Amino acid sequence: MAALEGSWVTEAHELGQCAISFQVNKLLHAEQSEFQKIEIFESAAWGNIMVLDGCLMVTTRDNFLYHEMMAHPALFTHPRAKRVCIIGGGDCGTLREVLRHEEVEHAVQIEIDERVTRLSERYFPELCESNDDPRAQLLFIDGVKWMAEADPESLDVVIIDSTDPVGMAEGLFGREFYQTALKALRPGGILVQQSEAPLLHGSLISSMRTQMKGAGFQAMRTLCFPQPCYPTGWWSCTMARKGVDLDSFRERGAATKKFPTRYYNVETHRGALALPEFLREQLEG
Amino acid sequence: MAALEGSWVTEAHELGQCAISFQVNKLLHAEQSEFQKIEIFESAAWGNIMVLDGCLMVTTRDNFLYHEMMAHPALFTHPRAKRVCIIGGGDCGTLREVLRHEEVEHAVQIEIDERVTRLSERYFPELCESNDDPRAQLLFIDGVKWMAEADPESLDVVIIDSTDPVGMAEGLFGREFYQTALKALRPGGILVQQSEAPLLHGSLISSMRTQMKGAGFQAMRTLCFPQPCYPTGWWSCTMARKGVDLDSFRERGAATKKFPTRYYNVETHRGALALPEFLREQLEG
Repeated sequence: MAALEGSWVTEAHELGQCAISFQVNKLLHAEQSEFQKIEIFESAAWGNIMVLDGCLMVTTRDNFLYHEMMAHPALFTHPRAKRVCIIGGGDCGTLREVLRHEEVEHAVQIEIDERVTRLSERYFPELCESNDDPRAQLLFIDGVKWMAEADPESLDVVIIDSTDPVGMAEGLFGREFYQTALKALRPGGILVQQSEAPLLHGSLISSMRTQMKGAGFQAMRTLCFPQPCYPTGWWSCTMARKGVDLDSFRERGAATKKFPTRYYNVETHRGALALPEFLREQLEG
Repeated sequence: MAALEGSWVTEAHELGQCAISFQVNKLLHAEQSEFQKIEIFESAAWGNIMVLDGCLMVTTRDNFLYHEMMAHPALFTHPRAKRVCIIGGGDCGTLREVLRHEEVEHAVQIEIDERVTRLSERYFPELCESNDDPRAQLLFIDGVKWMAEADPESLDVVIIDSTDPVGMAEGLFGREFYQTALKALRPGGILVQQSEAPLLHGSLISSMRTQMKGAGFQAMRTLCFPQPCYPTGWWSCTMARKGVDLDSFRERGAATKKFPTRYYNVETHRGALALPEFLREQLEG
């Protein structure tokens, strides 16, 4: 039970009674924004690390896992997503992955805390490289309110790239919000939402899917993928569709995509759709 | 960078500059065996936790991921594995999974440190529940030496369930050992070895596969799976075959298996075969 020597940044997960730490060189920035405490650390092995209210959010090294899996499965499942909305996602990494898709004509990112994006532009410039894309729109307002006022049938894909379902993100995990998203989606449209750790949050995932179904979504699928900087190192997102199928996707399009990925490919997309037996029993049993 | 409050057991990974911690109630046992320091902790959320020379080895809660993936993909790929050998695996969890397969007539576990098994019997009794199976044989000798003296073409599956490739396990990761295993395998036989963290150890995995090929194995596949108590929470095993195919497996057999699993099923088996793009480029590019 030796203490860690040197400087480390640690997130302890209360429910999980487990913690993840990264060795860091120094604190690059710390501030209390209107919404949360934001810290940026520099590390030798993981690049820069963003911490929000004590929770590890992004590292330069491993964010590709999460960002690719939040964007590409939904976009390769939709036949041709022209209009995409990202709720949260202030580090802009999901926006970058979305805009790699040529079929996307407009992508709006609605992040409540502008400081997350401004600090990301400074400390994670590679994640923000598409912020100036003419198809991108960055808003710094409340995503729940924006969605409630969105034009009906104006979106093809809604990506909910939020923090944990407590505090300000809580409203993004309930039936009322899902109803507004369903209304804003065109037929065939897809909502995808980060859905926490499969090993710790099975009942949350189950509850999300119940609320999605209750809101009128016809199909739900939970995808699992590795994410070392999040509790247990194993994460998930859940897709819901205003339509019937989330199992088939544009495999030919994914196999011949013209942009690079580091985790996503046809096989990992299919693989992510595989539910571990314990989760299958919890969600479908 | 707050220190963890209360009692925690932590493994810091030097190369990865990351650490994983579990909150514990108390130290149940500690000893220096002939080979290593063995500690057993009790925790509320993860059950008992075994630590060998400071490395987190097994928790009651999450060991099913590793043990199922070390056993079932190889055994459902082989048409009918009658004789299985496990090198290492002293906690007996892999042995238990192997013996769930009715076609297995004999399974020998060759663990160098008898104390690991004796303490596992005491603190992880569920992992040891098949130790008295008449098909099981437990030896506490050097696995490298045993394999060098094994009868030619006497085994169907060899599972190398060892610690990291340093110190006493180092000899299990080289061409000479693979040559002895190849000789001991019958045609169509499969070797499967734990192969560390995909995100940290790509060059080790690549080197293992090169050595396996050099030893005469004809096909290699690396499978990735979650494992929260190991560095990055994301782990792998690598299969090598005295034969040509590791992609197809007995899907019907896996779908109708008569024993329970918590992670493994037809879909997660197929999903584990999906190589993340960065690893595909490193191993096949």
